[in-house]
Amino acid sequence: MKKNVIVGQSGGPTAVINCSLYGVVTGGYADPQVGSVYGMINGIEGFLKGKFIDFQKMQNDGSLERLTTTPGAFLGSCRYKLPEDLGDAVYPEILKKLEALNIGCFCYIGGNDSMDTVSKLSRYAAAAGSGIRFIGVPKTIDNDLVLTDHTPGYGSAARYVAEVVREIVYDAAVYDSKSVTIVEIMGRDAGWLTAAGALAREEDRRNPGLIYLPEVHFDTELFLEQVKKGMEEQNNLVVCVSEGIQDADGKLICEYDSETGVDSFGHKMLAGCGKYLEKLVKNRLHVKVRSVELNVCQRCSAAMMSGTDCREAVQAGRFAVESAVAGETGKMAAYRRKKGAYGIEFVLEDVNLICNRVKKVPLEWITAGGSDLSADFMNYARPLVQGSVTVPSGPDGLPAFVKR
Amino acid sequence: MKKNVIVGQSGGPTAVINCSLYGVVTGGYADPQVGSVYGMINGIEGFLKGKFIDFQKMQNDGSLERLTTTPGAFLGSCRYKLPEDLGDAVYPEILKKLEALNIGCFCYIGGNDSMDTVSKLSRYAAAAGSGIRFIGVPKTIDNDLVLTDHTPGYGSAARYVAEVVREIVYDAAVYDSKSVTIVEIMGRDAGWLTAAGALAREEDRRNPGLIYLPEVHFDTELFLEQVKKGMEEQNNLVVCVSEGIQDADGKLICEYDSETGVDSFGHKMLAGCGKYLEKLVKNRLHVKVRSVELNVCQRCSAAMMSGTDCREAVQAGRFAVESAVAGETGKMAAYRRKKGAYGIEFVLEDVNLICNRVKKVPLEWITAGGSDLSADFMNYARPLVQGSVTVPSGPDGLPAFVKR
Repeated sequence: MKKNVIVGQSGGPTAVINCSLYGVVTGGYADPQVGSVYGMINGIEGFLKGKFIDFQKMQNDGSLERLTTTPGAFLGSCRYKLPEDLGDAVYPEILKKLEALNIGCFCYIGGNDSMDTVSKLSRYAAAAGSGIRFIGVPKTIDNDLVLTDHTPGYGSAARYVAEVVREIVYDAAVYDSKSVTIVEIMGRDAGWLTAAGALAREEDRRNPGLIYLPEVHFDTELFLEQVKKGMEEQNNLVVCVSEGIQDADGKLICEYDSETGVDSFGHKMLAGCGKYLEKLVKNRLHVKVRSVELNVCQRCSAAMMSGTDCREAVQAGRFAVESAVAGETGKMAAYRRKKGAYGIEFVLEDVNLICNRVKKVPLEWITAGGSDLSADFMNYARPLVQGSVTVPSGPDGLPAFVKR
Repeated sequence: MKKNVIVGQSGGPTAVINCSLYGVVTGGYADPQVGSVYGMINGIEGFLKGKFIDFQKMQNDGSLERLTTTPGAFLGSCRYKLPEDLGDAVYPEILKKLEALNIGCFCYIGGNDSMDTVSKLSRYAAAAGSGIRFIGVPKTIDNDLVLTDHTPGYGSAARYVAEVVREIVYDAAVYDSKSVTIVEIMGRDAGWLTAAGALAREEDRRNPGLIYLPEVHFDTELFLEQVKKGMEEQNNLVVCVSEGIQDADGKLICEYDSETGVDSFGHKMLAGCGKYLEKLVKNRLHVKVRSVELNVCQRCSAAMMSGTDCREAVQAGRFAVESAVAGETGKMAAYRRKKGAYGIEFVLEDVNLICNRVKKVPLEWITAGGSDLSADFMNYARPLVQGSVTVPSGPDGLPAFVKR
């Protein structure tokens, strides 16, 4: 008897999370052992409220493929952590709901916390004697999951950062005067995305001249010295900083303002480390300075998707559902990089070894007194941002996305 | 005897200012009456220091066309205002330098202040009995020049805003909870660019639900009411605000924080109106809220260039140099919209009627208690953002721009 597949999305969106969804759904329909393919609305949290859709209509009308060029999370997302106690009543409730839909395979697309969900559900189901398989599909712009070469979502966010920082370098160069531009980039615990600023650098230019990751303690005096030196090398210095940079005491630089600064509502200020460093440079170096915060667009830009990331994210979804049908459970679809010319193969890794851990940028890849990246990093990251994706336009001439 | 052409760029960069440069340069070379084509480095300010290039090398090696996909200002820019007194010694100095290069036509690509430069130089040259012609090519993402239907640069910036706001709407919709996202958009005096946020709205969605321009006095209490009402209509409300919104007393909203807020350097806070409104909504409506500042990327994004804007900007440059060769001076190349299906024709307008004036969004186009745009605006703006531009990639897989 055929079994059904259900898929959900969890955590923050990325440019390609719907590519993985497309991979799971089409992979499901491609398998003769699979009957229906369902999607949880707002992840496991929405599913618990009885919210899900059947993909049959999209399969019939041919609109599934448009998922691959739609940013955000088509199914909606959640930030819901299952209880640590597998004896909690929510577990049999979920199992009952899954059984009612005759689910054989459960695929969950997300980051760290989502792998935690896969871990708990797979362990509970196995202990309860259920045959339902649970497989995770990685997703995060932060690239901080262990046991995978990289994560779906990182390549597109990295391409966004590289393209935009390159454009900012051109923008900064127009005036014949000294200036500093500080670009603040996402990534609180790991500097992978900020490091992608190094990809923006052209062969014959040194800009961005300085790049700071949270992996290395940030010293404001060293920073000021490096900025001064950087400005001797070039008039219009561009500096990339991770939002999560912190000092030797573990204090976030973005919290420096809150020591003495209070906004008009009487609350401590939290304006981002870029804004703080802008003021620091202005006050100490007396030079023209601005800060640019690359925020939510880093994770939702369809226009700057990486073709490689998009393709791999689809394959990850497909591999996940195929693995579940084949009987695997409690695993995550991981990327393993081949030797030689760039390519990846898919492997399954135990979700219990992945959830609640963070992969940081190796310290040996961080050079120049904590202000630059090594060739090893460039060789690692460059293949991930290759290729672009053409997003179809709607009747209004703008990118046309697909909605539930 | 052949005469030479010189061209300069001035003011802030746009995505298509180099398209106009391409138009002037290729238009110059196409004219048998023109000898060499020169470019001032860093505008009139750099030219006064003797800085210029000859485009012959680029004409020979075929790299000129790459100007059309390079953001920033290829020649470098300046913010230099010529003295009001035409008796100042700088005027004969400029004329002497132009004559030394056997210049017949001077094209200047820029906004308001650049038209002021064209005005002064053309008046001085005429009075001095010089035959050199001075023509302006409009350029500004703000779209605030009078006597032209729109300005080169606006269409691309508007496409950027429309695309990114649409992506933000998708990003905001992923969680099943109430939220407000405030998007702060460039434009201090005129709301044209913020108004482009209305183009992001899809036919079947009301997001962005609220749009505020500097043309209408901003009332924080009315704003809070409109946000509350907007959240009844949809869970994840997106609001577009112009950086230049001000209250009935003419006080900028971005200055509200500075009344009582002081940063850690003891300076008054100026964090942008988006940040202020974020805190206002949080404190008064107790709802999940974030603000996103679309900053410098609005004017330098090659990835989201409007094909229409790019094409028209090239034509504007070409029309300018052709007009100068034909004997015109003291004029700006302006766009006039044709009746019926979208199209423009080029006309010359007196720069003296353009410089130092600002074209605002007509009040009758601003609807819904100052929080939306009319169909007339949509019909005006929609054609300007049509079409996209493919930017060639370099060996590193990222957009390859051209440098001096």
